Amino acid sequence: MAKVVANAIVAQSGGPTSVINSSVCGVIQEAKRSKKIGRVLAANNGILGVLKEELFDVSAEKASVINALKRTPSAAMGSCRHKLKSLDQAQADFDHVLDVFKAHQIRYFFYAGGNDSMDTADKVNKLAAQRGYELVCIGIPKTIDNDLAFTDHCPGFGSVAKYVATCAMEAGRDTDALYTHDTCTILEVMGRNAGWIAAAAGLAAREPQDAPHLVYMPEAAFTWEKFISDVREVYKRLSRVFIAVGEGLKDENGKYVTADTGAFAKDSFGHVQLGGVAEMLKAVIEKEVGIKARCNRLGTNQRAAMHFASLTDINEAYMCGKAAVKAALSGVNGKMITLVREKGAKYKCTTGLAELKDVANGEKKVPKEFINENGNHITEACRKYIGPLIKGEAPITIGKDGLPVYVRLAKKWVEKKLPRYL
Amino acid sequence: MAKVVANAIVAQSGGPTSVINSSVCGVIQEAKRSKKIGRVLAANNGILGVLKEELFDVSAEKASVINALKRTPSAAMGSCRHKLKSLDQAQADFDHVLDVFKAHQIRYFFYAGGNDSMDTADKVNKLAAQRGYELVCIGIPKTIDNDLAFTDHCPGFGSVAKYVATCAMEAGRDTDALYTHDTCTILEVMGRNAGWIAAAAGLAAREPQDAPHLVYMPEAAFTWEKFISDVREVYKRLSRVFIAVGEGLKDENGKYVTADTGAFAKDSFGHVQLGGVAEMLKAVIEKEVGIKARCNRLGTNQRAAMHFASLTDINEAYMCGKAAVKAALSGVNGKMITLVREKGAKYKCTTGLAELKDVANGEKKVPKEFINENGNHITEACRKYIGPLIKGEAPITIGKDGLPVYVRLAKKWVEKKLPRYL
Repeated sequence: MAKVVANAIVAQSGGPTSVINSSVCGVIQEAKRSKKIGRVLAANNGILGVLKEELFDVSAEKASVINALKRTPSAAMGSCRHKLKSLDQAQADFDHVLDVFKAHQIRYFFYAGGNDSMDTADKVNKLAAQRGYELVCIGIPKTIDNDLAFTDHCPGFGSVAKYVATCAMEAGRDTDALYTHDTCTILEVMGRNAGWIAAAAGLAAREPQDAPHLVYMPEAAFTWEKFISDVREVYKRLSRVFIAVGEGLKDENGKYVTADTGAFAKDSFGHVQLGGVAEMLKAVIEKEVGIKARCNRLGTNQRAAMHFASLTDINEAYMCGKAAVKAALSGVNGKMITLVREKGAKYKCTTGLAELKDVANGEKKVPKEFINENGNHITEACRKYIGPLIKGEAPITIGKDGLPVYVRLAKKWVEKKLPRYL
Repeated sequence: MAKVVANAIVAQSGGPTSVINSSVCGVIQEAKRSKKIGRVLAANNGILGVLKEELFDVSAEKASVINALKRTPSAAMGSCRHKLKSLDQAQADFDHVLDVFKAHQIRYFFYAGGNDSMDTADKVNKLAAQRGYELVCIGIPKTIDNDLAFTDHCPGFGSVAKYVATCAMEAGRDTDALYTHDTCTILEVMGRNAGWIAAAAGLAAREPQDAPHLVYMPEAAFTWEKFISDVREVYKRLSRVFIAVGEGLKDENGKYVTADTGAFAKDSFGHVQLGGVAEMLKAVIEKEVGIKARCNRLGTNQRAAMHFASLTDINEAYMCGKAAVKAALSGVNGKMITLVREKGAKYKCTTGLAELKDVANGEKKVPKEFINENGNHITEACRKYIGPLIKGEAPITIGKDGLPVYVRLAKKWVEKKLPRYL
């Protein structure tokens, strides 16, 4: 009797995080323990790698390299922002995905990403069912934005939260020292629609005099009048002002305070590319309050800062990867792994499941009870929610040159079996 | 016989660093060991604190707090950018400084800062000599910019170098992963006139495919044509481009590529406030090369990143603080402590001395032999020079909340003895 081969594909999508490689490590290590799964192939750059049939045997990587993924930031297998069009519009794309899966005997598809990725996984899964191709699709949550619904929080957020709070604390000390000259500092962090990362910066303010003195999240009604009054109040009280702001800040009409209008102003999903909110606040502060301001914009550094990541986050990301394989092997399909915060005084987190399509269409914003009455800082409830997610140090390997050692995959490419499609 | 009291003032000036508090720690601990020095007073916010007679007894801080300064970023005693005018123009200022010194029996003045601060210390010292007031002034080098002459390198540089190189490495991994969407990333670092920090980012490129692929320093002739050609070449070779650039980039005419033209465009020394070089490069890349670019601007975070500082840098900063006191007690005056790299294969650093006035008027730029022929990256010689300065990890104390614990001084204020001057 011929042996039935059931290979798996694992892929990463969307903006990288410090811990998405931990999830992939969990997938590979768990899959290698099972006799049901043959090879684990990686799609190079997410779904793009499937469409291009750019696959490599990630289960053939050295065990030490696979393990080192737990301390390597960004997406080692590559990522993408290629969104599959709707079933009607892009039947050819989906057909080709299934053709590639068939050609390489793929029966398991593990996709780590945000809600756009869960949408992709859901659509591929539904098409397979329509066509009678046996396929198991499991999503693994990943986003620094922490805005996925149906999960208590998202792998990737704890690390960015820890780093951004530390940056607020450190740059805050700089403002403390040089306030007679650089009176105001604005720390701009990511977060297109949700203010979770800006909220995390708020953790640095243990005492009233600590930075950040003001935290602006897209969820709180923002008006220029109120903003100027906030800055004046802090300046009067402390002679200095430190502001944390999410890039997705919206004005009272729900429009982005600033939007890049350049040639690449929208990404492939039609999302407006944001940037420059700190520069805009700076201009308003200098004009209206009359104090000098400067901007720190961490950019992609915040989502890749493995050198100061959260151990809790790394471990949970790994747990999600393992849980995805376990779920798939136990007959679950069309679900995303979720993180479930157990009840009780001590933080404990386990995994659960949510429908891919529900996650694809959901969004979790910072709730009202996490934002103070003035709409310019976080509450104690918010601290309690984010607090446990940033805990634990995760020492990295440092090379002889004093810099981090992060692995690269050897990428043993799988021979292409189909004509070129993309 | 009445006991002769000789107090000391220690002060910090200019842009804070991760390790300037280590130097202060060295001053205080060494001064407390000597019977010649009474109290060590801190001038709040540098020379401004002297002019305002805002002094506190820093030698009265808890020993544990003084020691914790070695792991606390920024200037714990406050800093300033207040430049004393020339002797002719601002006789009143200098007279008042001396009056304050006399009123508090200050016989030792330890000033940690860059060349502007050495200029201040030198002028105060000369006036004291003119007036026959016995005073010893010793400068302690401090600048992330690493541009002080007469010292092999500057305390503060090693830490920013380590952090910026790590940021280049990590954000570089992000670009590696998402190059199909975010094709180019520009990391903007500090450095007004010298490209040392941008050069340090270059350390991250261990292999040709590693970020940063291009490093631009003010010392290398920059032309837009060459720049566009550089970006195209890297893009063709690697499908992605990671650029590290110093804020002080100058065009072929020696003019800053960009300068802030806002209300606070010049600081109190008349230096042009820079910002936005990355945004300008981004605009040119998107228009001329046709690839999407994004900007990371670390801002003041780079000079306060104690969470990933260089132990070598911390130790050397401490050593400079102690050496300043030892020099003062041994009869040296009007000098700045320098760092001397001993000859030999193994890195070893000791201290030396330079004239305050020489340091005040000097500047050390990145030499030609540290810049590659194309003017777009560093050489092996540059790696050898910076390499040892970033070595050694310096674990910080982490609180129960998962974030760094940095101390604040209790600031036991000294009673004012003079009428208000400023």
